[in-house]
Amino acid sequence: MKKVRILVALLSTMMVLAACGNINTTQQSPSTTNKKKTQTTGQTDSGNYQGVITNGHYLTSKSRGVTNDQDANQLNLKSFENGLLNVSKKQFKPSKYVFQEGQYLSSGTVTDWLGRKSKDNPDGLNPVDNGQKDADKRNPLYLQAIEEQDYMTQNGNDLKLGGITIGIGLNSVDYYTKEKYGAQYSTKISDEQMKTQGREIAAKVLKRLRRTKGVGADTPIVIALYKQAPDDSLVGGTFFSYDVSDGNALGNWQAINQRNVVFPSAGGTSESGTSNDESNFENFKTQVQNFFPNLSGVTAQAQYQDNNLAGMNVTITTQFYSETEIISFTEYLAQVAPKYLPAGVPIDITVQSTDGVQSFLSRDAGQRKFTTHVFGSY
Amino acid sequence: MKKVRILVALLSTMMVLAACGNINTTQQSPSTTNKKKTQTTGQTDSGNYQGVITNGHYLTSKSRGVTNDQDANQLNLKSFENGLLNVSKKQFKPSKYVFQEGQYLSSGTVTDWLGRKSKDNPDGLNPVDNGQKDADKRNPLYLQAIEEQDYMTQNGNDLKLGGITIGIGLNSVDYYTKEKYGAQYSTKISDEQMKTQGREIAAKVLKRLRRTKGVGADTPIVIALYKQAPDDSLVGGTFFSYDVSDGNALGNWQAINQRNVVFPSAGGTSESGTSNDESNFENFKTQVQNFFPNLSGVTAQAQYQDNNLAGMNVTITTQFYSETEIISFTEYLAQVAPKYLPAGVPIDITVQSTDGVQSFLSRDAGQRKFTTHVFGSY
Repeated sequence: MKKVRILVALLSTMMVLAACGNINTTQQSPSTTNKKKTQTTGQTDSGNYQGVITNGHYLTSKSRGVTNDQDANQLNLKSFENGLLNVSKKQFKPSKYVFQEGQYLSSGTVTDWLGRKSKDNPDGLNPVDNGQKDADKRNPLYLQAIEEQDYMTQNGNDLKLGGITIGIGLNSVDYYTKEKYGAQYSTKISDEQMKTQGREIAAKVLKRLRRTKGVGADTPIVIALYKQAPDDSLVGGTFFSYDVSDGNALGNWQAINQRNVVFPSAGGTSESGTSNDESNFENFKTQVQNFFPNLSGVTAQAQYQDNNLAGMNVTITTQFYSETEIISFTEYLAQVAPKYLPAGVPIDITVQSTDGVQSFLSRDAGQRKFTTHVFGSY
Repeated sequence: MKKVRILVALLSTMMVLAACGNINTTQQSPSTTNKKKTQTTGQTDSGNYQGVITNGHYLTSKSRGVTNDQDANQLNLKSFENGLLNVSKKQFKPSKYVFQEGQYLSSGTVTDWLGRKSKDNPDGLNPVDNGQKDADKRNPLYLQAIEEQDYMTQNGNDLKLGGITIGIGLNSVDYYTKEKYGAQYSTKISDEQMKTQGREIAAKVLKRLRRTKGVGADTPIVIALYKQAPDDSLVGGTFFSYDVSDGNALGNWQAINQRNVVFPSAGGTSESGTSNDESNFENFKTQVQNFFPNLSGVTAQAQYQDNNLAGMNVTITTQFYSETEIISFTEYLAQVAPKYLPAGVPIDITVQSTDGVQSFLSRDAGQRKFTTHVFGSY
């Protein structure tokens, strides 16, 4: 009886897997290793890509987790990947393409490319070490991260490479030590230097990618340049330029006008063009901060696109409060947030304590009301 | 110009506050201290109570944060308060009553009541210290926590007490040390003992509450008995009995048949009546755990009401993964969860890494599809 049940469970599992996603599974034959059972993750939102699952496992990137090791600001990682998805959406529509983690650049390749050029590492895309230790005399590391994303088209039962996006993360500040475990120094890199270096690196990456096995001579390749935020930044960096090539040349760079801002701004001096949003935020903050006898910390990340507010993440940090207090607080936030926070842009509000996230509210661009969720426990 | 703007901001703030919630504000006159500006938090969901805000501040409990200090299991706190709200909803409908944190029992009162009875503390509701140190010979602490919740009716511009709910938290295990900072010992308390002691304590609490200023002789008072989970439990405790009185007597105790269970169950032996839900959960777990090359931890809390599954909280713990991996994983979860997890009950799924909550999925009792949210950052 038990065996039968397990068999039924197994069979239904397989049927469910087969029904998963949009791609029909190909017959798995152990003799041909190239034939893989491929499915997609499904889509929760038409603005997002589906991902690729092979034999029940997510197809992770061949260069998973490789960046130059001094990337101390985790925010850069999130905004780099999210931003790269957004740049890709300009070229590869989520309705037509399936997202696949980079499969053409291996960890070894990316590690070599991120290194300094040297006798041992002729492929290094960072400048040779000139032996100098002075911030202004040394050759800084311009290149911090390379990320590959593949965009696949569905062709019958198979996925075929339809395009590649490469993100190139460039340092605005290069942190270094003069001796091992020594004090940290830094070399500032100007936007102009970053742009020049970024474009030179991009040209080399494009040429090398064209020579990589599996990448067609005319596969569209998007290369996007990203300015890393400094280590002490409370927001991640932003993409500032991208180009698309279906050959060996770049030269039609498009500007991306994006800015990340923190509210409240340091020293009360808001950046140009943000003062209205900041005063709205400040009003909201005043309302919220006095709700409990103990002060709550209220901060926000805001993103500007072509000088218009594009979205906001509000974080409210409370001390430990009881469950009923969190429920009431969340209800109150749902009432005051639409009145004070800027309209027409997506906004997330996260309420957290030392025990982690307690509740959160979210609103899409087109909505006025927030949906709320209080994290419970049995 | 700036002053005018501030004034306008202030005025609009006051107008917004006045428009907040359902209760009209009364004119604030500094000479009569009783006249307070009262509003409510608003309601995000018709099944939840609104809370009370006085002069812009949340009206916190007079005995905020008082429990016997050895309550090491935080899960008890959440399930105690959530459970008490649910018991209250049987008697006080959220559409008719406004929730107010307890205002009649002060911190001092509750602290005295939670203590052992002694010459210095004649009001102590825990038994006298008999001097014994043996687990079976000593008088254990039966009473662990007392929580008061007030349910208010709206009467013109004022809120009036409409009822009180008292939660009485009782130990299933009493932890103690034989000397200060010594090793921890424990006394087990049987369900029968707990019930007898709980009812005796409830009778005393009811009498004392009737004598408290502001509590009417016939105000409905709900008293609910809660069994605390042991310190090592991965779920909180449950309410097992409640009674309603509009006089001085109790004696119509209603049983609450509630159970919290953890999946996967320890040693693979599931509790009676949960095996079907557990095997569904195990199938889901198998699907999910193999998604990434590194194993993910998948656990769940399930609540049973009258032996029927009433809800589930699934927690998936991953190592650090990239943003695109979390997006794909969340899409995948949204696809497999409806197929494997039990239908017809509310389910939350939280994906967390060492950096905190990464994404979450949620479904109400009546839905099939999950709503998803990936926590982003700019």
